[in-house]
Amino acid sequence: MTTATIFVCISCRRSSGDDEESSDQPGRGLVETIGARLRGDGRGGVAVTGVECLAVCTRPCTIALSGANKWTYLIGDLDPDRQVDEIVAAARSFAASENGIVPWHERPASFRKGVIARVPPLDHKELL
Amino acid sequence: MTTATIFVCISCRRSSGDDEESSDQPGRGLVETIGARLRGDGRGGVAVTGVECLAVCTRPCTIALSGANKWTYLIGDLDPDRQVDEIVAAARSFAASENGIVPWHERPASFRKGVIARVPPLDHKELL
Repeated sequence: MTTATIFVCISCRRSSGDDEESSDQPGRGLVETIGARLRGDGRGGVAVTGVECLAVCTRPCTIALSGANKWTYLIGDLDPDRQVDEIVAAARSFAASENGIVPWHERPASFRKGVIARVPPLDHKELL
Repeated sequence: MTTATIFVCISCRRSSGDDEESSDQPGRGLVETIGARLRGDGRGGVAVTGVECLAVCTRPCTIALSGANKWTYLIGDLDPDRQVDEIVAAARSFAASENGIVPWHERPASFRKGVIARVPPLDHKELL
């Protein structure tokens, strides 16, 4: 059963090489790498889906962690070559959590630094 | 029936006055103002809820528009004194939309400029 989905932005561009005109879309590879890792290691309730534009644009790679009745977290500045282990581990912690809020000390450094935003689940009520 | 919720961040601070130490939390007033507007004009399927921290922090006021089976939109840099009409109108357009994606030409200028991120609904599948 899927309890967390990693949405990976496949649209944002990253400059590549010395040529200012050169760029790639690193999210496309990241979807494939995470998918292969989940197939190899066991999904652990986690799915991955590429998305055309999470509208962040300036902080590739950008992902969102979403799940039913959970807070949604948007994380940017992720390195698709070095941080796949952290992304998959963080998604598993998120999937295992009750409400999507993973204790701060259990979050990898990339997730602490890269937070772009979070959104509560729809039934969230705050006491003001 | 509520088909859209405006989550307003009540935590982020805005400097106020000449004193660098002075700041207020404009989201707190914005929740009240939107709530009064919805009670006065009719809710139109829209609810408003204050939230302790949407984790954007640097672009007050920040809101999220959320709804079942809709894309979620995060919008920042909103002026709580001048843009309440735009916020409520945009939330009504969002509520009336099928999937949360309001046509570009129907979005107020503040929403075009202020987009921080968007996240698809959980059942979103992209053809890659």
